Amino acid sequence: MSLIVQKFGGTSVADLERIRNVAERVAKTFDQGNNVVVVLSAMAGITDGLIDMANQVAVSPDKRELDVLLATGEQTTAALLAMTLQSMNYPAKSILGYQAEIITNRNYGSARILEIGADRIKKLIEKHNIVVMAGFQGCDAEGNITTLGRGGSDTSAVAIAAALNADKCEIFTDVDGIYTADPNICEKARKLSVISYDEMLEMSGLGAKVLQIRSVEFAKKYNVSVHVRSSFSEEEGTMVVNEDSDMERLVVSGVTLNKDAARITLKKVPDQPGVAAKIFSPIADEKILVDMIIQNTRAEGLTDLTFTVSKKDFIKALEIEKQVAQQIGAEKVFGDENIAKVSVTGVGMRSHSGVASKVFSTLAGENINILMISTSEIRISCIIEEKYGELAVRVLHKAFGLDKVGK
Amino acid sequence: MSLIVQKFGGTSVADLERIRNVAERVAKTFDQGNNVVVVLSAMAGITDGLIDMANQVAVSPDKRELDVLLATGEQTTAALLAMTLQSMNYPAKSILGYQAEIITNRNYGSARILEIGADRIKKLIEKHNIVVMAGFQGCDAEGNITTLGRGGSDTSAVAIAAALNADKCEIFTDVDGIYTADPNICEKARKLSVISYDEMLEMSGLGAKVLQIRSVEFAKKYNVSVHVRSSFSEEEGTMVVNEDSDMERLVVSGVTLNKDAARITLKKVPDQPGVAAKIFSPIADEKILVDMIIQNTRAEGLTDLTFTVSKKDFIKALEIEKQVAQQIGAEKVFGDENIAKVSVTGVGMRSHSGVASKVFSTLAGENINILMISTSEIRISCIIEEKYGELAVRVLHKAFGLDKVGK
Repeated sequence: MSLIVQKFGGTSVADLERIRNVAERVAKTFDQGNNVVVVLSAMAGITDGLIDMANQVAVSPDKRELDVLLATGEQTTAALLAMTLQSMNYPAKSILGYQAEIITNRNYGSARILEIGADRIKKLIEKHNIVVMAGFQGCDAEGNITTLGRGGSDTSAVAIAAALNADKCEIFTDVDGIYTADPNICEKARKLSVISYDEMLEMSGLGAKVLQIRSVEFAKKYNVSVHVRSSFSEEEGTMVVNEDSDMERLVVSGVTLNKDAARITLKKVPDQPGVAAKIFSPIADEKILVDMIIQNTRAEGLTDLTFTVSKKDFIKALEIEKQVAQQIGAEKVFGDENIAKVSVTGVGMRSHSGVASKVFSTLAGENINILMISTSEIRISCIIEEKYGELAVRVLHKAFGLDKVGK
Repeated sequence: MSLIVQKFGGTSVADLERIRNVAERVAKTFDQGNNVVVVLSAMAGITDGLIDMANQVAVSPDKRELDVLLATGEQTTAALLAMTLQSMNYPAKSILGYQAEIITNRNYGSARILEIGADRIKKLIEKHNIVVMAGFQGCDAEGNITTLGRGGSDTSAVAIAAALNADKCEIFTDVDGIYTADPNICEKARKLSVISYDEMLEMSGLGAKVLQIRSVEFAKKYNVSVHVRSSFSEEEGTMVVNEDSDMERLVVSGVTLNKDAARITLKKVPDQPGVAAKIFSPIADEKILVDMIIQNTRAEGLTDLTFTVSKKDFIKALEIEKQVAQQIGAEKVFGDENIAKVSVTGVGMRSHSGVASKVFSTLAGENINILMISTSEIRISCIIEEKYGELAVRVLHKAFGLDKVGK
């Protein structure tokens, strides 16, 4: 008898009819002789609605209380699904974060799981119950309700799968798997049957939002194989697994585009110790995240420094740097919002050389100018003009042999 | 420094603006140098909405899961009020049933409180927090969420007031106190400044729904003085207190009318041992509650038996008794839906004779025929024709000197 964790996202439980569909899917898995632990998100839109209410009563809602409020969303779906299963004569019991002993730190709104004392779930399973766990929530050591941040139910599912040593962890969502590129941009994108944790981590960080990034970190740490699949079809999705697994060996497994980038350049910065701190400290103080940083040394003790931020932070960062430039004696500051980041990701890069040069020559072949470059062990990212973003994805997708055959 | 428990009902927290009003009221009490524990209901209508959802997913929703679902209502208002208070710079913390250790039996949907381990609330109070407790909910010894039934937040408030040995327990509601009669029926009804637990218990049982009856039992058991008052005005309401308190001494403190009654009569029942059991067992098996029972012995070993039930159970009870009559050889069964119960209640009856005869003569003076009579130590109830109900209330109200002066 296998133990299967099945997680359903907000669109999969968006209304009572869809909850019924989820119940039927769960019942089928149970009927096949499996133990099942279901992890649920709130109904689509509910969490945003609760946040709206909170923002109406308080300019900056207390984070502890916001978590108490938000936790009602998953509590509702867990109770409704358990009821639905019971009405179909399946033995189901809901369990909330604190009942499942999902112990987190006290970082309200984006708490991290410290430990899971899954005894109560184990007992329920022993009595052959279908366990319906409210995702997204836990509690700190003193019993205060905490939540795990956007997409936190993914992490709930992977964490409980690890704690229970489950045989499978299935993440049901509104897409049918992980693609080699966004099918809206690249019609020849194809679904990957398998992807490694590291590739998934890089892609999540690049804005592919299928899984919460922390859930992938968790899966990697505890070696939980995660099956990302559609809740609206029976088709197999994508397995997210350890790199050592028997994977299809692609050099590059995906091409991603992130348009949420803007760059700021400080020209002719006096190249002295401490100058970088002067440039980046006031940005950090405003909680603005900096992505890429590039420094080109010029002659005469001067340097040019360029960095990228989210588009939403662009105006503020630019203002800050104009003040900084005066203080440190930089010649000029200018910014550019019309950029995008295109990235190729693949664990194959670890053993294949020539990937970077192929990226550069492919883009050059379309006369796409590369403005900045950054790399990791398994990823190459280029900042290019925004208008070339989609084209870049398509030509790179083809160049690395990712195009679907026959289309 | 006093400790005050303030409970606000569903209409008092019906929307975000009203929650703001509640916050201001609580803040004012806190500013006056008091410690405050607030107990909240769900927003008006929310509990019914959740029950509707449950009934859509299951014909007979599992009671454990229904309690998990319903508990979200009070969790929501508790978080919102705590947030609102914090945004006004008051130190507020929400606390849920299980966190407050409101330990109940496992009778889901109408659980009874077994004990309260109020340590956590005491600690929060010591740190000078305003504690905002979710009413209506508790948990059993194993941590399963339970609810206390309709109006259960009243009981939450009284119970926590008892556990904390609070100085005051204020129940804020949408009426401004307890009246000598329903002002919609009797315009000369006046607000009582004080009423005893026993009178309140009789009146609650008679259909005056200001307080959950169990909360009054609790208040009586632990001698908690309860102040029922309006959340929409500053006016004093009605104190519900021990009879020994310094009360205004009315013989009768209230006249109530309950139209939800129907009667069934079995004529010429053979008067044998066990015949009553044969008449009432099948009714009890259908979970139909019987209110009054009257038996008139006739000659020749025959008896007439009349009893009352709720109007909603009338048809079913009548069908059952027609079958029973055949089995036991009763001559005839007939029913009457057009009846009502009018009652006068007052602890003064314990020491005043002549109350019953005054009731009978007053009704007789209006040619109102009395169909059945039942009494308790502090109450006299008469079944009369429904159409005379309002008139009976008014004449009894006047006869016992309850009319407001000058109107």
